[in-house]
Amino acid sequence: MLDFMYYNPVRVHFGKNALEALPGELSRFGKKVLLVYGGGSIKRTGLYDRIVSALRESGKEIFELGGVMPNPRAEKVYEGIELCKREGIDLLLAVGGGSTIDCAKAIAVGARTDRDFWEAFFKNWEEAHDAIPLGVVLTIPATGSELDKSAVITNMATHEKNGYDSERTYPQFSILDPTLTYTLPKHQMVNGIVDTISHLYELYISPPDEECLTDALAEACLRTEIDAARRAVIDPEDYDARANLMWTSSFALCGMLNNGKKTDWESHNIEHPISALYDVAHGAGLAVVHPAYLDYILPYAVPRLKRLAVNVWGVDPQGKTDEEIARAGVAATRDFFHALGAPVTLGELGLGEEAVDPIADLTDLSCFSYQPIAREDVVAILRSAL
Amino acid sequence: MLDFMYYNPVRVHFGKNALEALPGELSRFGKKVLLVYGGGSIKRTGLYDRIVSALRESGKEIFELGGVMPNPRAEKVYEGIELCKREGIDLLLAVGGGSTIDCAKAIAVGARTDRDFWEAFFKNWEEAHDAIPLGVVLTIPATGSELDKSAVITNMATHEKNGYDSERTYPQFSILDPTLTYTLPKHQMVNGIVDTISHLYELYISPPDEECLTDALAEACLRTEIDAARRAVIDPEDYDARANLMWTSSFALCGMLNNGKKTDWESHNIEHPISALYDVAHGAGLAVVHPAYLDYILPYAVPRLKRLAVNVWGVDPQGKTDEEIARAGVAATRDFFHALGAPVTLGELGLGEEAVDPIADLTDLSCFSYQPIAREDVVAILRSAL
Repeated sequence: MLDFMYYNPVRVHFGKNALEALPGELSRFGKKVLLVYGGGSIKRTGLYDRIVSALRESGKEIFELGGVMPNPRAEKVYEGIELCKREGIDLLLAVGGGSTIDCAKAIAVGARTDRDFWEAFFKNWEEAHDAIPLGVVLTIPATGSELDKSAVITNMATHEKNGYDSERTYPQFSILDPTLTYTLPKHQMVNGIVDTISHLYELYISPPDEECLTDALAEACLRTEIDAARRAVIDPEDYDARANLMWTSSFALCGMLNNGKKTDWESHNIEHPISALYDVAHGAGLAVVHPAYLDYILPYAVPRLKRLAVNVWGVDPQGKTDEEIARAGVAATRDFFHALGAPVTLGELGLGEEAVDPIADLTDLSCFSYQPIAREDVVAILRSAL
Repeated sequence: MLDFMYYNPVRVHFGKNALEALPGELSRFGKKVLLVYGGGSIKRTGLYDRIVSALRESGKEIFELGGVMPNPRAEKVYEGIELCKREGIDLLLAVGGGSTIDCAKAIAVGARTDRDFWEAFFKNWEEAHDAIPLGVVLTIPATGSELDKSAVITNMATHEKNGYDSERTYPQFSILDPTLTYTLPKHQMVNGIVDTISHLYELYISPPDEECLTDALAEACLRTEIDAARRAVIDPEDYDARANLMWTSSFALCGMLNNGKKTDWESHNIEHPISALYDVAHGAGLAVVHPAYLDYILPYAVPRLKRLAVNVWGVDPQGKTDEEIARAGVAATRDFFHALGAPVTLGELGLGEEAVDPIADLTDLSCFSYQPIAREDVVAILRSAL
């Protein structure tokens, strides 16, 4: 087990009645609240009205920043920063999924500095010394952003999709009501499931290989996520299935599953330029990239992928070599994504050979675990997924 | 899954080099530090000298409160409160196990009120509005106190062993170095293992029974703890085994395993008067009480105890009734405690029939899950363990 530091101060309110905690949380912060949200689905579902009522009853002055898109853009962050500085916003309330939350995190630190937010934080990883407090009402279980400190922003001007984190970017509170996900379109639910499994893989499929609690917890998360996904696809209003999907995706990134592990983020690194260049949903890109990446590095990670195959996917090891068992686990992953309706080839994303070089050019390789890879490996991985 | 609220702001530094984080943590707090510790083993092992050096190098003024005993007493808390008030202590640094940490937590809140700490907090559960910040260097993995907000104090004057918790009693930081446990006497290690398994049982063996992430995480903890215990008994300096024991006992009580569960603390409730009346180590008392309690409530909890037997103890369900499978899991628990060298009867604690009524009289039944029990049930449970 590697040495680690763990710290996560987010207050989580989870369940059917979680929104009832909102007034209590609001009472801890100042009067001016900026509501940050996405494409407007929260207006159709009535959630917007419920939140605005709670804000009014709490005596808040409400400001709005709507229209945050998937793969949130730097432009929207600049717009939010300007609004916050002009109005002296006391609290950001992000209502939505990871894109909305990430955008709000970038605004939170960007609005409390005179420096350019992209240059200071997302390019040069300077320490943020202050931030506007952030609260979250989650509607899409996927990125774990509601329980972690990291944010990913896309800068279309430079075709960069960069991340940043700081203790300042932890939400002060996150409200997680699984019933809010009942109305989520199936493809968004599936993208969230793929993203969650991908996060769990990045954490689990990495050294050290000695028995450790963190690995056992990750396997528990994977089995729960897979089981809940199968049930939620059949019955979108299966409360326990939805609750498990929501809580597993959040728990996956709370930091507990990093403890004592090296971790591996190369699949995410390869996917980021796919989203940045072609505006593909992050989960859809990961469904293509992650199994292809695992097949490629498999010779260097046989014991770990064998363990995944047996403990998570229930592969019967009888009569198979270790490598065959490991391959069966990766195949089970791809089959599972496919059965959920996720794309598993670049072709299904509408991309062909012409996309391989541009994606490889922009892939920022940095976080391998079992085997370092280079540009030519990325090209080979992408070609294997055409 | 039941609704829940989760919040835990403790900073954890874990590993072989965790003590290197102490100066950085100390820099966040004022000059006057009260070192709280137990019977002096930290002086024999050299830990005391390392900590005093770090405190001096950080420019701290050092005060001391040693001699905190197992089942920490109200008298020691009063002594600490008086010292803190007199000297204006800025930080409590508890170095030891759960008794030392719990004593420091009670001092932390007691020193920042004019009310009597026992009356206000441990009798009447008033809200603590202030507390002296608390840091921890853990030497005994067992109670989880280093990662939770609760404290248990014994008042010998009234034969009460009461608990209290508040967001004010979370440690600000906890330093967990598994190598510090290498020198722990075997009986203390075993008591810690029993206590940890007992905590995991109290959380896991409770409704609801629907699939939920929390149950899967608890099973992962139990399997890890059992495996690590078997290895640490053979080789006390098996680092990974010691690290898993330490982190599992902390994680068990961080709050994550309460999420969505009713939880059941009746075994702890029955054990507390055993410690309070006969000064028995908490883990030793639990090794006797917990299997006896489970055997007694088994008819009301067959599906859950069957799941425990199969998923945690690897009981082969073939050819057995559900109740037989469930009984085999409880028997495996008792056998495991026995194999570690823990007592599994009241006789092994030096107690007989004469102890049954006094223990039952002082048992504060309050937290059942599957089946409420009354005084006569406690008597029957204790008699079954004679």
